[in-house]
Amino acid sequence: MAEGLFKDLREHSIAEFFRKNSQMLGYNGKIKSLTTVVHEAVTNSLDACEESGILPSITVELKQPDDEMVFVRSKDNGPGIPKKHISDVFGKMLAGTKFHRNIQLRGQQGIGIAGVTMFSQMTTGKPVEIITVTKEEAWDIELTIDIRKNKADILTQQEIKPKPEETGVEYLANFKEVQFSNADQSPYEYLRRTALANPHAEITYIDPSGARINFPRTAQELPERPIEVPPHPKGVIVDDILLMAKSSTNHTVKGMLQTELSRFSAAKGEELQKHVEFDLGMAPKKVSWTEAEQIVKAFKKMSFLAPATDCLRPIGEKNIEAAMQSILAPEFLSVIERRPTVYGGGYAFQVEVGIAYGGHAGRKLASGEQRWEIMRFANRAPLLFDAGGCALMKAAQDVEWNRYGLKGIDNLPVTIFINLISTHIPYTGAGKQSVSDINEIVEEIRFALMDVGRKFNRFHSHKRLLQEHSARRNTFLKYVTEIAPVMADMLNRDKKDIEPKWVKLVEDHVGETIDAEPGEEGIPEEPEGKKGALEAEDEIEELEEEKPKKGKKGGLSDYM
Amino acid sequence: MAEGLFKDLREHSIAEFFRKNSQMLGYNGKIKSLTTVVHEAVTNSLDACEESGILPSITVELKQPDDEMVFVRSKDNGPGIPKKHISDVFGKMLAGTKFHRNIQLRGQQGIGIAGVTMFSQMTTGKPVEIITVTKEEAWDIELTIDIRKNKADILTQQEIKPKPEETGVEYLANFKEVQFSNADQSPYEYLRRTALANPHAEITYIDPSGARINFPRTAQELPERPIEVPPHPKGVIVDDILLMAKSSTNHTVKGMLQTELSRFSAAKGEELQKHVEFDLGMAPKKVSWTEAEQIVKAFKKMSFLAPATDCLRPIGEKNIEAAMQSILAPEFLSVIERRPTVYGGGYAFQVEVGIAYGGHAGRKLASGEQRWEIMRFANRAPLLFDAGGCALMKAAQDVEWNRYGLKGIDNLPVTIFINLISTHIPYTGAGKQSVSDINEIVEEIRFALMDVGRKFNRFHSHKRLLQEHSARRNTFLKYVTEIAPVMADMLNRDKKDIEPKWVKLVEDHVGETIDAEPGEEGIPEEPEGKKGALEAEDEIEELEEEKPKKGKKGGLSDYM
Repeated sequence: MAEGLFKDLREHSIAEFFRKNSQMLGYNGKIKSLTTVVHEAVTNSLDACEESGILPSITVELKQPDDEMVFVRSKDNGPGIPKKHISDVFGKMLAGTKFHRNIQLRGQQGIGIAGVTMFSQMTTGKPVEIITVTKEEAWDIELTIDIRKNKADILTQQEIKPKPEETGVEYLANFKEVQFSNADQSPYEYLRRTALANPHAEITYIDPSGARINFPRTAQELPERPIEVPPHPKGVIVDDILLMAKSSTNHTVKGMLQTELSRFSAAKGEELQKHVEFDLGMAPKKVSWTEAEQIVKAFKKMSFLAPATDCLRPIGEKNIEAAMQSILAPEFLSVIERRPTVYGGGYAFQVEVGIAYGGHAGRKLASGEQRWEIMRFANRAPLLFDAGGCALMKAAQDVEWNRYGLKGIDNLPVTIFINLISTHIPYTGAGKQSVSDINEIVEEIRFALMDVGRKFNRFHSHKRLLQEHSARRNTFLKYVTEIAPVMADMLNRDKKDIEPKWVKLVEDHVGETIDAEPGEEGIPEEPEGKKGALEAEDEIEELEEEKPKKGKKGGLSDYM
Repeated sequence: MAEGLFKDLREHSIAEFFRKNSQMLGYNGKIKSLTTVVHEAVTNSLDACEESGILPSITVELKQPDDEMVFVRSKDNGPGIPKKHISDVFGKMLAGTKFHRNIQLRGQQGIGIAGVTMFSQMTTGKPVEIITVTKEEAWDIELTIDIRKNKADILTQQEIKPKPEETGVEYLANFKEVQFSNADQSPYEYLRRTALANPHAEITYIDPSGARINFPRTAQELPERPIEVPPHPKGVIVDDILLMAKSSTNHTVKGMLQTELSRFSAAKGEELQKHVEFDLGMAPKKVSWTEAEQIVKAFKKMSFLAPATDCLRPIGEKNIEAAMQSILAPEFLSVIERRPTVYGGGYAFQVEVGIAYGGHAGRKLASGEQRWEIMRFANRAPLLFDAGGCALMKAAQDVEWNRYGLKGIDNLPVTIFINLISTHIPYTGAGKQSVSDINEIVEEIRFALMDVGRKFNRFHSHKRLLQEHSARRNTFLKYVTEIAPVMADMLNRDKKDIEPKWVKLVEDHVGETIDAEPGEEGIPEEPEGKKGALEAEDEIEELEEEKPKKGKKGGLSDYM
């Protein structure tokens, strides 16, 4: 009986797994599936260009050969891919270059684009075509995936002669079970948001009608390349130390830690020695769980410099402001970038958020109702789906917006922009549309949002103050015209002598009040300096202090 | 340059992938991680028992050897696992027996329990221990996973002599980065809900304090074993036909379809021949995309019997009712089971839902506020996390509850029970906590909820009617006492003659009205027959018809 259950036991390939569970890769729903295709192609292209120091120019073209089929062509100006690697990149899942690199990249799993090849083949039976041009060679290749073996089958390969002058990769594939649309979650919206978060990229989108939409490059320089940094001591777990020790070529544990971790200096090595009960001069191979555990516990007690900022490359406050300003033309806009920090596993991350109010901010429903809009990005790639389970969404919902003058925010004309960047984004699934709600990440985003919320509150109070002020002024002026004749009569003077003095009095006092502390109550003209990762308590205390102060009241009432 | 990017290209194992992305397996958050461990162990045990015709008795014990560590022991009375398969089952991801079987099982991916082994090792560095007793052999084995190779390393193995009399598997492992709790999403709650949805299982839970909680077996018979059925023609995609054809041992396509699909008879073969432009007598190996596509297109036009009901085993309306009644003691309860149907990929599925109102239904927050509660199950396994992105949740939210007298349902004392059963649950991720929002599934659940909603509405109208009625009666009776003396005076009769007649008149008419159509307006005493998978239009028409009718008005006003 026990044996009977196991007669069919066998090992399955990762490709078989994802063929059966293609929804886990983002292939569920016809609109979503098409956007997933575009997402995978474009993120690969952006990564390749940036890693090679090339300003990206990307073209995505969609065609509808027939009612059911959509053809996608995606072309970049990257360095191209050597022919010998084409099979692994486009036709094998979990083959990748980015898996163990501690660097901020859009791709990280080595599943995405091979998944696209699989989805094309699953729905159309056709191979995909890849045209690759490197400085050395140029090829036109057709391939399919052998699902059982998780391995590419190259069907045709043709050298291109003469070789085109520009390097790059062009990926051409057909899909069924997809649907072209220009809706909220369409390729168009995906590319629009990609352009928003990547001002250094030029993106051209050609839709099935032949319409050509160009998102021009608005930043003429590549973001500086992030520097690959080793894990941070504050984030490593015991098992990481053991894995490190297993493959280390260092002669001592101390040396290994200096090589493999960031912010771990020789001095830190000496400090660590005081915390552990074994000699850090021992060979890494001899490290057992007990020693590794002592190391990690000691790390918890020690202090280290925060992760280097150059392993992460935020979009930048100015870039985000410019982009949101140009698209949304809001009444109020504030953008905050927080300092990099680290979450479990030693991965550095950083958040930047923006809030726009009024103008074209928010979403208008077909019914005319107003809703807020939350634009989520992970390593500058837009997240359009699965908001329900996403840490970015959760953080936005967790903020008590009514404390910041944004009561009922979900029905206000508000757009919130959140970009999470990290050397390893903890996605909830291989479809990469939603970030797992790791506590450290949710809190950082929440603090950042509270920051911009406070700024909104000041703007809002200022606006309200202006309104109240103007109302007061009008009231006083109304009294002037009523009181002046009476006063004139009482004092036996001409009304014309009295009235201008009263008006001046009102204007001097009620006019002056609001500008008494310029910048303090108004909208800051420059973004403030970057805020650190404060503790919850700090933030809350700060909030108390910053409660909107009313402008100084003028002394007019003394006259009444 | 192009080559430089690929110097680190290599293939990673699925275990490496999930070690780095353990959040995708449900290992994010300390409480969730512990519940995931219990979930994986218990679902494997339930599957093994049921497949072997054994009434499950499962014990889960948690201990806290120190502040950071939690020890989990999970034991079943299944058939045991032969020693030679232990490595693959507990120490290799994507090795499994269930992957290609079209049968309703809790496990389906071959990842879960190997993931538990990996998580134990990642957080404690310790091996896991497995004690397996089959009729033939009994072993005590310790193993770890070689993450790079996705392969078990057996550390110790010891034959147990004398062999214990009872067969079964006992899994023992230690974990850090977990937290014991008795909260909403704890192992306790997980087991409580498992018991609710599996009345044929006996579950014992021993918490770290030594407290022993027994969820007794309330159904003394195993649910009939689901029959493994081949894919249904209405659900297969072109690629499925091609894969089938590639490995078929049949001589003709027609024969292959009869063998490989359910509901495809010889007669259907003849019908199909009329729809396709090639001879179904051709060899399967020769089938290309074009032919396979013709077959699938023809299937869309043809009609087939619905999937056999015996491939799916719902919990059953009576069992769900009994369970919800005993736990929630609600004021109103209604349970509906829909007929099996099929979603893309040929997978049969079925939904059963219940709604309870009043009594202990819903959730009380610490603040005393009332919230609704949605209990989600997939193949009888509770889903406690990631509700935000789940099709079951979405369906519940999509219903316009105010049409059914449940305005503001999220603040009402309402518990909604949803069980989705299928030969393949389309989870959003390998963590299996959330179901992808496949349209067919969302709609089926929505229709089922609308059904129970209508029943609630009748109950609710009835209740409201009773209240209105009683108010009317009291009004009339009040008039009687005022009118009777006047009438008596007018007619020159004794008040005592008049009044009883008037009272009788009121009671006859206002008393009778509400019972005029017993059962029609009242709560149905028996669940109605199973409803089929109706079209949206049908449902809506039905809804219109069923708008609460007021009871017939009595003729009393004629007397006034």
